[in-house]
Amino acid sequence: MSAPAGTTPPGPVLGVVGGGQLGRMLALAAHPLGVRCVVVEPSPSPPAAAAAEVLAAPYGDAAALAELGRRAAAVTVELEEVDTDALAAMEQSTGVPVRPSVASIRTCQDRLLEKELARSLGLATAPFRDVTSRDDLAALGFPAVLKLRRGGFDGRGQVVLHGADDVEAAWAWAAARPALVEGWVPFRREVSVLVARSATGEVRSWSPVENVHVDGQLAESRAPADVPGAEELGRRLVEGLDHVGVLAVELFDTAEGLVVNELAPRVHNSGHWTIEGAQTSQFEQHVRAVLGWPLGSTAPTGHSAMVNLLGTVPPVEAVLAVPGAHLHLYGKAERPGRKLGHVTLVAPTPAELEARRASLAEALRRAG
Amino acid sequence: MSAPAGTTPPGPVLGVVGGGQLGRMLALAAHPLGVRCVVVEPSPSPPAAAAAEVLAAPYGDAAALAELGRRAAAVTVELEEVDTDALAAMEQSTGVPVRPSVASIRTCQDRLLEKELARSLGLATAPFRDVTSRDDLAALGFPAVLKLRRGGFDGRGQVVLHGADDVEAAWAWAAARPALVEGWVPFRREVSVLVARSATGEVRSWSPVENVHVDGQLAESRAPADVPGAEELGRRLVEGLDHVGVLAVELFDTAEGLVVNELAPRVHNSGHWTIEGAQTSQFEQHVRAVLGWPLGSTAPTGHSAMVNLLGTVPPVEAVLAVPGAHLHLYGKAERPGRKLGHVTLVAPTPAELEARRASLAEALRRAG
Repeated sequence: MSAPAGTTPPGPVLGVVGGGQLGRMLALAAHPLGVRCVVVEPSPSPPAAAAAEVLAAPYGDAAALAELGRRAAAVTVELEEVDTDALAAMEQSTGVPVRPSVASIRTCQDRLLEKELARSLGLATAPFRDVTSRDDLAALGFPAVLKLRRGGFDGRGQVVLHGADDVEAAWAWAAARPALVEGWVPFRREVSVLVARSATGEVRSWSPVENVHVDGQLAESRAPADVPGAEELGRRLVEGLDHVGVLAVELFDTAEGLVVNELAPRVHNSGHWTIEGAQTSQFEQHVRAVLGWPLGSTAPTGHSAMVNLLGTVPPVEAVLAVPGAHLHLYGKAERPGRKLGHVTLVAPTPAELEARRASLAEALRRAG
Repeated sequence: MSAPAGTTPPGPVLGVVGGGQLGRMLALAAHPLGVRCVVVEPSPSPPAAAAAEVLAAPYGDAAALAELGRRAAAVTVELEEVDTDALAAMEQSTGVPVRPSVASIRTCQDRLLEKELARSLGLATAPFRDVTSRDDLAALGFPAVLKLRRGGFDGRGQVVLHGADDVEAAWAWAAARPALVEGWVPFRREVSVLVARSATGEVRSWSPVENVHVDGQLAESRAPADVPGAEELGRRLVEGLDHVGVLAVELFDTAEGLVVNELAPRVHNSGHWTIEGAQTSQFEQHVRAVLGWPLGSTAPTGHSAMVNLLGTVPPVEAVLAVPGAHLHLYGKAERPGRKLGHVTLVAPTPAELEARRASLAEALRRAG
């Protein structure tokens, strides 16, 4: 069984569309399972290059996807803005499964389809309406939010309508792009739940997460959060989509209960705490799920807080001096607002977590 | 501060001599800290290639070491059989520190120097004697063990002398290579302790480990083991050597106390449990230590057992179906007796660990 030096290492290849930090952390988690990631990514030296082979090509490049089809046991995505037609063609011609399915990705790409799916499963969403004319913008009253059906994330791709005076500018902004209008949801907090489903049908969810956004971008997550019903809701969505892999569900926690906001058909920033804060990380679980392997325990290892490092990287020494701080840098150059890394703190009690969170805040403040 | 696409990612480079599984796990642990490993390794596609750049050259190759000196913030080793003269020359000409120091590596390369160091620090060793003539082989009585001073590991490089009749064959086997003879140590169990010392002088040790060897090769480790005095002993050795990085100390636990057996100036198989079983793994800690960064907590996360996968790789599904099993494959082809990976089990109680260990044994038995 011994192979000559220089041959391909044993174990399956996982094809990944996208080579950012999510692809990087997927690739780092895949190696211990004997799985090598090959990513399609136009940037020549992306974060995932740390631990994955990079095919430098646009996400929808037919030749690059065909190469994944020749080499990979399965193909997955680390971003939702992929060319699903190109993926479907690759799957058709090579027989290599795309996981999650093209249908699941298409639903999660489109805010209107997401909401229709949630409603069809009996889950609450914001009031919403497809926008086909100027009049639709005022149909739900004010305030309301005009959102592009595709492409927005981190607070981009949407504008708030405070009143009738805002309609004209919003209509011009949308510029005939497919969009929907959503009624305002008064929420107490933003939470999320991550669920994994293996190709075998096995489903596991992690404890719910409470999230704090700043300027529309995730700043901090805490888990486990007490959000009754969130895990069951996540299970219904992952099964309703026939989804394979990790599914992230962003929710509003309101006085009337949980409201489904957005779905991401992939590992998610609000699940980074699972690397140290759960028995099995979202990255390892996603690899297991898309390869049809048994899923791991999602039990928490303590009380976790995940803090994003945005725009600048603090001195490594300052972060590592904080008791219990786990640093994750993505190998990206600094740029205002850019996600450059995160720090996870895990503590045995909520009080101890607060103390560590305060130490980290102080270290980041002094470093900044 | 933003860099154009395709430029070198930010963060320091760590040079590593050796690209086996230890280099692989070092490189995987380094990336989250923003550290990229560049390894010198003659094999063109070694385990570390998963996450490190490989300079394909002999370990002592002057040009490859000079390249490390040009690019790296520090140079370390993942094996002790390195060319210390070449490393010293590189350090001299480039000013890039070799950590652990060349002096520390030289001591740990030589079983005689190791024992002399331990004795000089007041620590117990087996009775020993440098071998310069046939007569030395009988000087400590029988049974005794003839060991080459350099190069043996995993039970190789030594022969047992049961009586005077074995002297002639042992002398011929040694064939004038530098060797020592050791008196027999009746031990209750084999244990080890791992200690890390940062370039700043900060020292942290993990809980002691109980090890089971089969045919001279590590089969299983358990931690934390109750071994009074082991951590203090490790601290004395790491400080006595002025060592920087992880130091592994293999010990015999005897009726008369702890006896120092061997030192390894590097991360060690008996520390693999720390990846999931301790707050900070030996791999992350080694990176922190050699770069002069603050060390992380070594507190255990539970009760851990680490089982080596030797010779054959079991089906991944079978291992992952065991509750709490963490699989680590090294990307190596199968070969009898070869270390191909390991599985770590972590449990909240010793009884639960036993149950999981039994599940793993059953899974491996059925798979085999």
